Amino acid sequence: MSEFTIIKNYFQVMTKRHKNTICGIGDDGAVSDVPSDCELVSCVDTLVLGRHFPMTTSAYAIGYKSVAVNLSDLAAMAATPYAILLGLSLPAKLACDEWLGEFARGIGGICREFGVELIGGDTTRSDVLTVSVTALGFVHKGRAITRAGAKVGDVVCVSGEIGSASYALSQVLIDKPTAWQHTLDLPIPQVTLGEVLRDYASAMIDVSDGLGQDLGHILTASGVGASIELDKIPCIDELKVLPDNQKWQHILNGGDDYQLCFTLSEENFKRLNSINPYAIFAIGKIVDGQGIELFHKGKLIEFEIQGWEHFK
Amino acid sequence: MSEFTIIKNYFQVMTKRHKNTICGIGDDGAVSDVPSDCELVSCVDTLVLGRHFPMTTSAYAIGYKSVAVNLSDLAAMAATPYAILLGLSLPAKLACDEWLGEFARGIGGICREFGVELIGGDTTRSDVLTVSVTALGFVHKGRAITRAGAKVGDVVCVSGEIGSASYALSQVLIDKPTAWQHTLDLPIPQVTLGEVLRDYASAMIDVSDGLGQDLGHILTASGVGASIELDKIPCIDELKVLPDNQKWQHILNGGDDYQLCFTLSEENFKRLNSINPYAIFAIGKIVDGQGIELFHKGKLIEFEIQGWEHFK
Repeated sequence: MSEFTIIKNYFQVMTKRHKNTICGIGDDGAVSDVPSDCELVSCVDTLVLGRHFPMTTSAYAIGYKSVAVNLSDLAAMAATPYAILLGLSLPAKLACDEWLGEFARGIGGICREFGVELIGGDTTRSDVLTVSVTALGFVHKGRAITRAGAKVGDVVCVSGEIGSASYALSQVLIDKPTAWQHTLDLPIPQVTLGEVLRDYASAMIDVSDGLGQDLGHILTASGVGASIELDKIPCIDELKVLPDNQKWQHILNGGDDYQLCFTLSEENFKRLNSINPYAIFAIGKIVDGQGIELFHKGKLIEFEIQGWEHFK
Repeated sequence: MSEFTIIKNYFQVMTKRHKNTICGIGDDGAVSDVPSDCELVSCVDTLVLGRHFPMTTSAYAIGYKSVAVNLSDLAAMAATPYAILLGLSLPAKLACDEWLGEFARGIGGICREFGVELIGGDTTRSDVLTVSVTALGFVHKGRAITRAGAKVGDVVCVSGEIGSASYALSQVLIDKPTAWQHTLDLPIPQVTLGEVLRDYASAMIDVSDGLGQDLGHILTASGVGASIELDKIPCIDELKVLPDNQKWQHILNGGDDYQLCFTLSEENFKRLNSINPYAIFAIGKIVDGQGIELFHKGKLIEFEIQGWEHFK
């Protein structure tokens, strides 16, 4: 199967044309109209089979997740997703109808869900399945939320349960798949909440490498510290019954959550919470200083924050 | 060495801030201002060590070429390059100062040459070195040149010698490196000519998979055929002395040229040729029908056009 056959049969037809696309996939480059009141937001994430996915992950989930993790990055900038470009390095044995069909269905599924068009792609052969997705989005001028705006006194929030994907991974690796496998395979990027937070948040990041490390990026970029109450971090029941250290390991160092972590003023927290009380969870405060102080049952505790680093 | 150390030490400092960048590398996404009279052009190309490069290729050349091939795609749309995003999958043994320093120097070198900023990146570990670059550029509204505009009677041109990289590769693979190695390792994307052709060309593509196959894409997209005089295709002296079949193999099926192939009206050809007589080479005409007719010394010849397909 040739590169062109793959692009034509599986990818060219996969997503709906977006109104801002002038020339889509199939030329040397795509041509797009960025709305005149918007800026462009772009990001890239690469997933490698056997590193980011267990070898048993379905083609559908690989396609879906490779897009989801990028839409999560756009959400963390408060941007509205527009399009993706797909760099696919494919072992010859996967260049078959069965695998490519399911992979394309995964990509197409999440793209259609979020109104995203595939506007560019490059398919090549490799011994290792590698999926590199670039996502493009739009945000109103001057309204992107970066990591750098957190202020002393701001409330620190997350958008949902943390640690579920890490727990699911730990269980599937010992052949005990859980009901939380979908949080690992098919994470839902918090796109709608990200767009809402454009009017409220002072700083934002998506939780992909572990809440501890990712919150740390906000603190470093903003030049502040945080005081976090571990018991306020929302998590699934299966985590609540684990010994504390295992529990905090999944929650603080686990990664792959694709929830948003953000800061906002006390006033904005109250405003947003009165409109939408179930969407955000306060877990602590921004304080003077640097780094994260962790409290459990009112007491300061020691816990080493590591997060996932690919080259440790 | 952690992912964050690599991004910070090697990539964050590598390129100069572009005036259209509002938030560069180091957040969840980059934020960019697209000029109000321009459209966005985007493309992606993935290079895999051992497939697109011989294993002996220097880290500098891998960095340089992974950007060059993308700038070539932007040039083929008549766009002005703006920025790149880098998805790097790196074997652990290459996560060292020596390799990363040279790789970053290659990327930085070509980016500075063309005023391009690295605005996003993701670094991950893999057993196979895979470099996936997305390039972004700007083109005045409605002025991008696609593959679809060639008309009967148009002149078919290329921007320079074809077949050199294919010849260099064939020689280096038998341990006889040539003076043309630079055309394989360090191709010069035809960015300036691409910008000029915005005012002249009716259709354009970059020659990356072989002139025969790439010209074929213009013909298919435009619904026309071409009549090509093989003796008019510019090539290096080393190719001229080869037996015809070997020569045409390098020129028509070789690939990796990164010259532009384009069509333009007779009138525009004369206008452009009078301004800049050394930049473009007429090699034939667009005709009614489909496919390519090849002429050698005035006679129609048979030659199988294949081009490079990754999954043959």
